[in-house]
Formats: sequence, structure tokens, C-alpha cells
Amino acid sequence: MRVVRGEDPSTGGRAFGVAEMTTGYVHGYGAREALRLQDQAWTLAELLHSDTAYPEGSTVLEAGCGIGAQTVTLASRSLRAHIVSADISEASLAEARKAVEAAGLSNVRIAQADIFKLPFPPQSFDHVFVCFVLEHLARPADALDALRSMLKPGGTVTVIEGDHGSAYFHPDSEHARKAIQCQVALQAKAGGDALIGRRLYPLLRQAGFGEVQVSPRMVYADADKPQLVDGFTRKTFTAMIQAVRRPALEAELITAACFDKGIADLYRTAEDDGVFCYTFFKARAVNLAG
Amino acid sequence: MRVVRGEDPSTGGRAFGVAEMTTGYVHGYGAREALRLQDQAWTLAELLHSDTAYPEGSTVLEAGCGIGAQTVTLASRSLRAHIVSADISEASLAEARKAVEAAGLSNVRIAQADIFKLPFPPQSFDHVFVCFVLEHLARPADALDALRSMLKPGGTVTVIEGDHGSAYFHPDSEHARKAIQCQVALQAKAGGDALIGRRLYPLLRQAGFGEVQVSPRMVYADADKPQLVDGFTRKTFTAMIQAVRRPALEAELITAACFDKGIADLYRTAEDDGVFCYTFFKARAVNLAG
Repeated sequence: MRVVRGEDPSTGGRAFGVAEMTTGYVHGYGAREALRLQDQAWTLAELLHSDTAYPEGSTVLEAGCGIGAQTVTLASRSLRAHIVSADISEASLAEARKAVEAAGLSNVRIAQADIFKLPFPPQSFDHVFVCFVLEHLARPADALDALRSMLKPGGTVTVIEGDHGSAYFHPDSEHARKAIQCQVALQAKAGGDALIGRRLYPLLRQAGFGEVQVSPRMVYADADKPQLVDGFTRKTFTAMIQAVRRPALEAELITAACFDKGIADLYRTAEDDGVFCYTFFKARAVNLAG
Repeated sequence: MRVVRGEDPSTGGRAFGVAEMTTGYVHGYGAREALRLQDQAWTLAELLHSDTAYPEGSTVLEAGCGIGAQTVTLASRSLRAHIVSADISEASLAEARKAVEAAGLSNVRIAQADIFKLPFPPQSFDHVFVCFVLEHLARPADALDALRSMLKPGGTVTVIEGDHGSAYFHPDSEHARKAIQCQVALQAKAGGDALIGRRLYPLLRQAGFGEVQVSPRMVYADADKPQLVDGFTRKTFTAMIQAVRRPALEAELITAACFDKGIADLYRTAEDDGVFCYTFFKARAVNLAG
């Protein structure tokens, strides 16, 4: 699915989102981004996916699968469900297809589709799964409403999003907070919302869903959890912020010195006396409409 | 235990802390504060205390019990442990005594004591419990070190603190963030740290403890959880920020209009489409010294 963001793939339009490859220096970037997304999926799989398993024979639409960073985890946990993983970007889908094949999964069908013009009959899925997609959309509630129309009555939607306003750390650093704010500003400029996690509840209600249940998933990383410090603090969060250096400087959101100090300070939180906190939000809701 | 803060009990020196009654208009304030602390203890007891129970015959020092807001919960969950609840303020201890008696608890002894001059022999306790106390101290690591000396080798300390930097909400509001910042600034001015939750890990390490395990306890309140919205968003967090209006204005940290808008915006997050997030940190560590 086409997500609303700038043409330059490094504009910060993605947060924990899908990689895309459309412009000049993109291939190098795309490879790095794909690696980052794999690191991230590996670190976060348990936290985000452990309580999602779809029953035998059920049909599941994964809306906005991107390069398939979540698809493999999702499909591995629901081997007898039929999963349709859709995205607007053919380039991303090629990667997703490779990932699914490499994992030896036979329960995933890859489909090219626009989230607002889905090529499926109404009420054709038992479940919808959306991960790191709404953050990129200018009209997330409309997207959820469109996805709701794909659900059978009583079908569920599961949504996972981050929230960059949930990031705090020790040692605290104004520079680090300003660097993070660049990502938030760039994402807003591209029509998205990097602080969307906290508002999944009102968004799902607004989109007509019932029985909305939101469950925050906090990542807390201190030196007692070295894998998490490395996998999340360094390689997921800080790497993601670091990736917006160029567009942030081009948009004159920050000085190079301030940004670089901010990144150094984020890495500083990964040292032995450092602490890093971030929260993802996972929501489940039901299509009560007949 | 005497906690470092301003002489005026409404200076914001407390966050989730102990009430104190020493100056002019204090009794009225004290009663309101006691009520708020009871509301808060009731709402948070499960989240903060459910995994703390001390074995039969063990001796536990509750350092900085204040008016006993946590004492009753703590003691009720460890009926066969011997608990010594200490605070520097006689006025607070009188309230704590009443609370313990009203709850019919016979396993609590109330003691007047300064955290840095504890009137107990070294290594005389199996466990130490400290809740909403370190946030008020200028030297929290030294306090923890002093408490460590009270522990037998292999004894544990359990620490619970909030972190006001962990508060975020929908709708987001700069005014609300500024009002919260007043509380943080006043607490800093009084020598404390309202952002201490995130740094329990390094503090406990610095104080010489081993096997430090930190467990964040996030409060997530949306309209699906009306009791939490009322008990926490309105009556605990927003009430606490509202209570620093006078000292914040006196210290010229904020204009009255901005502060009042911030408070209104915090209450706004308790409405049907609002969301409020806050995280407490609970840590457990072991005295490995012989």
C-alpha cells in the first residue's frame, strides 16, 4: 500500500515502517534499511507478536507488509491461517516475497494493493493485521474504516504502532530529544504521525470498531539486558533517528552539531549506566457492524 | 525520614511522595493531600505491590513511610513479616499509626528516624522497602548506600519511584507539558528529581547493590478503563500537578493562564477519546556485600 510520505526515501517518512526504493541513492539505503528492519523484527518479535495467532482456516489480511519484516513472524505463528500480505510498492513486495520463500512459508499470498482501493470483496477476511503503517498515513482513521469494510462481522483488527514521544532515557539529553524531534517533524511534514501509538484507541473508535483493547508494550533496556541494549537502543531506535540526518539538515530543522551530539547522546544511553525506554502500542478491536 | 524539600509543603517537593504538615495553611492542604494519597494508593496498589510479599519471620524496613499510604498495602501482603516503618516526620507518623491501627495490622512498628542516621544496628534487616522517597533526596545513591548497610548479606532492597518524563497523553498539549515541567522544576529546586524512575538501575549499582532488576509499571488509561481514568488521570496525576499551582506561580515558572490551560488539557485527556500514559519503576536488588 502506498503510504503518504516524501519522494526521498530518507525523508524520515518511515519510523518503524516499510522500506521503499524509488530514487537515486536508494539501493544502498534500501539495503541498510532492510538490515535495520530485520534487526528490529528479531528483537521485537516476541514483545509485539507473541499474543497473536490466528486459527486454522481463517483468512488474514496483512495491510502494508512492506518488505515483509513482520510477515514472516506473523505467518510463522499462524501456520494454518491463510495470510494475504499486501503493499502498494512492487519493490517492497519483491523483498517480502523473498523473505517468505526463504522462511519456507506456504501460507502467505503476496498482493499489490492500495489501502484505500483494496481489490478484495467487502467482508472477505476474518482478521486484519496492520503494523507500522498508520504512522505514515494522513488519514489513519479512514484507512482503518476501509480495512473494517474488508472484515466479516465479528472479525478483528490488530494494530501495532510506535510512539516517539514515549522515548526517554538516562542520561537525559536535550540534544537527543531535539534529534528525535526531527524525525517527528519530518514524519508530520510527510503527512504522518510518529506519535500515533498513544491514540490507537480513539482512532479505532472513530473508524467504527468496537471492543477496542489497547495494550502498551514497553521496551526497557539497561545493562542487565545487553541484547536489548544492542538490538533496540543502538540498532533499532538510534539507527532510525540517525537515518534522518540528511533530510533534517536539508530542512534546516537542526544544526549538524546539535544533531550529531544528539545521536552521540543516544548511543551514550546504551553504556553500562544508561537506560532507554520506548513504548509500542498494540490494539485489538472488533468489527461489530453487520 | 527528613526528605530534602522546601519549607512550604505545597512547593511541589513531593510527587507521589509523603505528605508533611509544618506550616500555616497546612492542615487543610494536608487533609486534601492525604485523601489524594489514599486515592492513589488504592488505584496503584495492585500495579506496584502485587509482586512483593516477605516471608514469615523476616524483618523489613520501610524507609520513608510518610503517612503510611503504602504501609497498609505492604503490611497486608506480608502478614507474618515484621515491618518497621520509619519516617523523620512525627506528624506523618501519627497519620501512619492511625492508618495501621484502622487496618487492624499488628505486624508494623512505627519508628521516627532519619534515613542518613538510622537508629538500627548494621545488617539488622532482611529487606528494605522504599517507595516514593528517593525522588525527594539530593543524594539518592548515598541514601541507598545507607540503607544497604541496614541489610544482612543477601538481603534485598525494593524501590518504587515515578518518572514525570514518562507522562504523555492524547490530545497532546504543550500547556500540559509546561504545567508538568513546573512540578519537575520545583522538585529539582528542592533538591529532588521527579525523573528519577528511569535511573533506578544506575543508582542501585552506584550504591553497591548487585543483581539489580528493574521492572517498569506502566499506567495506560483510556475510556475502556473508567476507574483508572478517574483514579489515576484525574485524581492522582492531574491533582498532583494542580497542587503546585501556587509555588509555580510564585517562582514565576509559568503564567497563570498557561498553567490553568495545562491543567484543563490534562483533564481533557480523561474524556472519552483521551488517553493518558505514565510509568512507575520498581527495582529489586541484593546486598552482595558480606
